[in-house]
Amino acid sequence: MFDKILIANRGEIAVRIIRACREMGIKTVAVFSEPDREALHTQLADEAVCIGSAKVGDSYLDMNNIISAAVEKQAQAIHPGFGFLSENSMFAGVCKDCNIKFIGPKGSVIDALGNKANARQMMINAGVPVIPGSDGILADVEQAYEMADKLGYPVIVKASAGGGGKGIRIVRKKEELKEAFLSAQSETKAAFGDDSMYMEKLIEGARHVEVQILGDSFGNVIHLGERDCSLQRKNQKVLEETPCEVLSESTRAKICDSAVRAAKAAGYENAGTIEFLYDEDSDKYYFMEMNTRVQVEHPITEMVTGVDIVKEQIRIAAGEKLLYTQDDIKISGHAIECRINAENPSRNFAPCPGTIDYLLMPSGGLGLRVDSAIYQGYEIPPYYDSMLAKVIVHGRDRDEAIAKMKRALYEFIIEGVDTNIEYQNKILNNKQFEKCQYNTSFLENVKL
Amino acid sequence: MFDKILIANRGEIAVRIIRACREMGIKTVAVFSEPDREALHTQLADEAVCIGSAKVGDSYLDMNNIISAAVEKQAQAIHPGFGFLSENSMFAGVCKDCNIKFIGPKGSVIDALGNKANARQMMINAGVPVIPGSDGILADVEQAYEMADKLGYPVIVKASAGGGGKGIRIVRKKEELKEAFLSAQSETKAAFGDDSMYMEKLIEGARHVEVQILGDSFGNVIHLGERDCSLQRKNQKVLEETPCEVLSESTRAKICDSAVRAAKAAGYENAGTIEFLYDEDSDKYYFMEMNTRVQVEHPITEMVTGVDIVKEQIRIAAGEKLLYTQDDIKISGHAIECRINAENPSRNFAPCPGTIDYLLMPSGGLGLRVDSAIYQGYEIPPYYDSMLAKVIVHGRDRDEAIAKMKRALYEFIIEGVDTNIEYQNKILNNKQFEKCQYNTSFLENVKL
Repeated sequence: MFDKILIANRGEIAVRIIRACREMGIKTVAVFSEPDREALHTQLADEAVCIGSAKVGDSYLDMNNIISAAVEKQAQAIHPGFGFLSENSMFAGVCKDCNIKFIGPKGSVIDALGNKANARQMMINAGVPVIPGSDGILADVEQAYEMADKLGYPVIVKASAGGGGKGIRIVRKKEELKEAFLSAQSETKAAFGDDSMYMEKLIEGARHVEVQILGDSFGNVIHLGERDCSLQRKNQKVLEETPCEVLSESTRAKICDSAVRAAKAAGYENAGTIEFLYDEDSDKYYFMEMNTRVQVEHPITEMVTGVDIVKEQIRIAAGEKLLYTQDDIKISGHAIECRINAENPSRNFAPCPGTIDYLLMPSGGLGLRVDSAIYQGYEIPPYYDSMLAKVIVHGRDRDEAIAKMKRALYEFIIEGVDTNIEYQNKILNNKQFEKCQYNTSFLENVKL
Repeated sequence: MFDKILIANRGEIAVRIIRACREMGIKTVAVFSEPDREALHTQLADEAVCIGSAKVGDSYLDMNNIISAAVEKQAQAIHPGFGFLSENSMFAGVCKDCNIKFIGPKGSVIDALGNKANARQMMINAGVPVIPGSDGILADVEQAYEMADKLGYPVIVKASAGGGGKGIRIVRKKEELKEAFLSAQSETKAAFGDDSMYMEKLIEGARHVEVQILGDSFGNVIHLGERDCSLQRKNQKVLEETPCEVLSESTRAKICDSAVRAAKAAGYENAGTIEFLYDEDSDKYYFMEMNTRVQVEHPITEMVTGVDIVKEQIRIAAGEKLLYTQDDIKISGHAIECRINAENPSRNFAPCPGTIDYLLMPSGGLGLRVDSAIYQGYEIPPYYDSMLAKVIVHGRDRDEAIAKMKRALYEFIIEGVDTNIEYQNKILNNKQFEKCQYNTSFLENVKL
């Protein structure tokens, strides 16, 4: 096992990883930007190294500074968390070159899954359902027209190298195709230096269902059940839950089996998530993409399985076998996560950095967990994402989990900055949400 | 189900109960003494009623004021928590007379179990092992001499009506018996108006092992496994854990079965705990007493079983059947609780009331829970017990639970008052504790 790990991240996920390391008897090195000098992750780690200015390119995305810190502090491994360098295959490669273990899959696997057209083909080969679409790259607009006619509108054109919503266009009518294709292509060319495009049928009114998997270096892959992450606003998840209540037992078994196949096909090692679109009407699901890192919403899976995903990541990276077989994994009860952000829902969710003047976090009782990096007096820097805390609850069933979340949010008092707590509360009290009737466009359309 | 419950308590247990009620959709009425006006339980309840001055006799022990508050606020039930009126059969009776449901067993059952000689006889009849001793009351010192000769020294003389350490004497030699017997007798006469005495063999070097049970009004009784509460200082529990690792599977099954028999013999309804002395050398256990209320340490049982004991108490009191059968109860992993008190271990654990100037409570990660009623800026009143918080952890096994507790205590920062956090940390780092080698006299004798 490692003696010391550097955490190449900030905020709650950095704190989450530091906590796991401490429980495993592993020393930790935090890295921090100038404005994060007083951040909780900087304080809680055994050692902390300033790696640059507020600008992420000069700190949390600066590979050289991070690797230098790891070398100087003799860290044997780097945990990238999520975001930042977590899905950067070059960073994984640099770690390897410096004889530092990158806690995640191999760089080549990140690349293979990061190229969406490539990942799509890999899934087809593995027998995992994909959204009807082009087999490979579209050479030009003419091929795009042919494919769209074959699939039937609406379709979606996507950049192979895309990410963060870049290089993606929905096309509802033939007349819109040419402009959409070309503008997405130039966008991806500018952003990623790659202009290859592919096309899929647009599946509307579907749910976002993802499956957590763990794979070790001995080729063992298990799944930890699925999560329903359909509640999104501008492609950002807002509230996640597990299990996905609308799945039948047989569909759940199939989708989880597909996820394990997908991971095996990719030669996947460490924790990962396979995202699917699930269409309730047809009871069909389609591979969307694989995230090659720990997810923000991993705690809900931990609550219903009892498996500590971050500790498993570290064990796997250290060359240990998975602690669990598939038969060991029993899903118990229901878990929900609400992301609490410093933002103002009534002003189009504008971020609200500032100082937390007063803080009372929900706590106590059975099945409540708050992962965060805030404290009373903490000054939220304006440079990074606005997530303040993740409130996670675990109940005997969905109704109890919802009641528990309402209780938790009732108790959560943050003064000094605006938050989305009341917005989350409105979701919890929505009648359609109560009946689990929602899909990925729910939050865009509902009046809360 | 009840619409509204009054909580006749303060501090963390009052907050714990309020939280359970909120999750069940039940309105709550807090009662508070003058110095508890700003207390968390006063703030978190839906309604709050001042019931008197700082003196417990004028507030938390004043039955009239509490019943008046319940009647005025139309509460249908009263949860007494632990301590205060929780094991007061007269209070249970007054509630009944006022048509308010007392959340606990019947007054007659509290009385039957509260009389120790009577409880002992009840257990003998039910086939539950008791400590070798007198069958019933000792008429006088002469009978005491006879019994002590029969049992062999050391023995312990006990008042039937005793409690809180009153009316109890350890007798190691014949020469000490007469004085011990007479002084204990006059002490219990003065304290409880009852001078009946009995005698038991003194079991030394034993562990305190207790079994949590739940019984409903339909005669169903289940156990939720055992807790090892041997780590005590002056008869106050300091750290509790479950399971008790030194029990064999067969002894565990026997002791839990004895607990269920004991509860059935008593016609017990609601949550209760049967305390046993367990002698490792002989692998024998002996009934000590039954606590007819929720215990401070109930959360560790909740963590390993997933059963919310406070919610079950409320359901049972409302006349519902137990949600679980014995087969539903699976013990998973290991849980530990550390009681964090405002006290100074280096000054003989003198209580340290004061104001909490800065507070950072441990949180986040899997399997950590803090039940408390404190917040930054809270002024701890000097009138009540010194417990500030209960830190509870749940790990895959005992080693992981210990590591998690160390992590939690490392993160726990309380400024403004002295606490026993460092003392708890020393226990966790003690070699004998690590090997689970301790008994009820461990903390009195060990040099930490």
